[in-house]
Amino acid sequence: MSGRMNKQTLSELGERRVVRQIQKLLSDKGIGDDCAFIPWGREYLLATTDAITIRTHLPWRSPRAWGWHVAAVNLSDIASKGGEPVGLLLSLLLPRETGANIVLDIMKGARDCCSRYGTRVIGGDTKEGAEICLIGTALGRMPRGEFMPRAGARPGDMLGLTGELGAAAAGFLMLRGEAGKVARGLRGPPSRLLLPLPRVAEGRAAARTRKVHASTDLSDGLSASVHQLCEASGTGAEIHWDALPVSRSLKRIGMASEDWVMHFGGDYELLMAVRPDGWDPVQNAVEKAGTRFSMVGRVTKARTVSLAGPGWTKPLKYGGWEHFRKME
Amino acid sequence: MSGRMNKQTLSELGERRVVRQIQKLLSDKGIGDDCAFIPWGREYLLATTDAITIRTHLPWRSPRAWGWHVAAVNLSDIASKGGEPVGLLLSLLLPRETGANIVLDIMKGARDCCSRYGTRVIGGDTKEGAEICLIGTALGRMPRGEFMPRAGARPGDMLGLTGELGAAAAGFLMLRGEAGKVARGLRGPPSRLLLPLPRVAEGRAAARTRKVHASTDLSDGLSASVHQLCEASGTGAEIHWDALPVSRSLKRIGMASEDWVMHFGGDYELLMAVRPDGWDPVQNAVEKAGTRFSMVGRVTKARTVSLAGPGWTKPLKYGGWEHFRKME
Repeated sequence: MSGRMNKQTLSELGERRVVRQIQKLLSDKGIGDDCAFIPWGREYLLATTDAITIRTHLPWRSPRAWGWHVAAVNLSDIASKGGEPVGLLLSLLLPRETGANIVLDIMKGARDCCSRYGTRVIGGDTKEGAEICLIGTALGRMPRGEFMPRAGARPGDMLGLTGELGAAAAGFLMLRGEAGKVARGLRGPPSRLLLPLPRVAEGRAAARTRKVHASTDLSDGLSASVHQLCEASGTGAEIHWDALPVSRSLKRIGMASEDWVMHFGGDYELLMAVRPDGWDPVQNAVEKAGTRFSMVGRVTKARTVSLAGPGWTKPLKYGGWEHFRKME
Repeated sequence: MSGRMNKQTLSELGERRVVRQIQKLLSDKGIGDDCAFIPWGREYLLATTDAITIRTHLPWRSPRAWGWHVAAVNLSDIASKGGEPVGLLLSLLLPRETGANIVLDIMKGARDCCSRYGTRVIGGDTKEGAEICLIGTALGRMPRGEFMPRAGARPGDMLGLTGELGAAAAGFLMLRGEAGKVARGLRGPPSRLLLPLPRVAEGRAAARTRKVHASTDLSDGLSASVHQLCEASGTGAEIHWDALPVSRSLKRIGMASEDWVMHFGGDYELLMAVRPDGWDPVQNAVEKAGTRFSMVGRVTKARTVSLAGPGWTKPLKYGGWEHFRKME
């Protein structure tokens, strides 16, 4: 079977199956987590990397926002494990006709984001490439006993979510012009799409309580993250539609549908499986760090992921953007 | 002046000036070194990243060699500081029509190289891109007191070099077919070009002596590395042509000229500025680790870099491949 698989192209296979093949090849369980973690005395060194092509991921023309974005998505992975960031490496691939000011603006954006989170750009590489591409690597550290893996959820855990869902989607719709007149009065959403705020302090605060069994961030939307957390943990989950903290902006433009709330992505929030007896301390810690923390569902023994409302329940699809896969 | 500069394109400016602009922006001295280094108790965490586009850097068709190469060049940066590698992150940008077997072969090559050096691939990212590009990030650790910076050379230091010069050049010439019939009997060189061997044990052994003032690796050739080490240290150097350990393969194909010996690159050797009273212990340590260590010149107070032979001396040009810069 694996022989047949290998002759297929990436677009036929899709990113998730390719990643599973790579995991098998390297036989490393850690590779499925948001960060790699390396024991270092009583601590872990955390490391994570994210590659972003402007054409596919950030089709707006703001080099400073590109730089911020690549820093933010990498710091979000560190945050999801409860780590403290200690530095960012940023590599750039650039066509040779790129203006030097674009390069400097990208670096400024990354510098600003790092500086907001108490860290800095410590190195990188610049090379010629066919298209603009930013590759960030974030490093972090934390006590080993506080690490929040992706694979630790247990039946009965409460699912907690930082912040709101759909702020990035609202920003996207506004930039695309579909939000119409209603949107003009809203100022926040595009900035939440362009300049996401990773939940670094919130992740660290939650980890310190030692009451979080599992955690991941939300880059591809809530539905993808719930599926990933459950798949890694060997559990299922039930999400409560009415409990979801939906962005007011998304509601005001009348787009608070399942698609935009749960499958669009771009909200760099954290999803955590919290021990049933630990909800209050975790919620207090996260909210003290500055962001609301909502209970959005439960981890279940049955390995299905469902979405439930008053009087109805249905399977929750595995949404989110997947690379290489042809869109239907 | 910087305003005028910023309107220029990268091909007008060249990589080195862009990197200097970025350094200024981030005001971080460490950014000019082979690795970033982050204090961690009594140790340093080392981190370095290298992006490689197949089209520009590795125009031969061997995905497994590409994977080996990206691991090797990153481990070479860790080696040049004296560090012990603790992991490699590998991100891939791939056109969607890429075969899945190519991806797996790249990962196998990286895995094999890491495993030879006692470390492993700990994570990465795969994304869709216009061309195949491999971005490696190597992490390492070492006692802070043993760190060998790029910027520490002092007048009077002896310049030591691991291994040989020109093995990769010989491999390149043979693959290009220019080496003619003479080359057919040679088996080593192409593998040294395709599968470079970073000097990890040698770097670690040299660092342990604490007698090395400065060190860098040779990715772009000896001339570029001598210039970089001197520029960072505020010194000059004199290189002795007759003392250079030139690859026997390069000699046999009659190509042991300055260009191929000093400016081509691809030999991942280490160049070290050794304390005058420390030569013997450093040489012993490196050679015990498995590779010859040759004295190739001296660090000078005068800030010029020269090449000297019996009865002649001349300025040594700053050679090596520079990205973005139009070739003359």
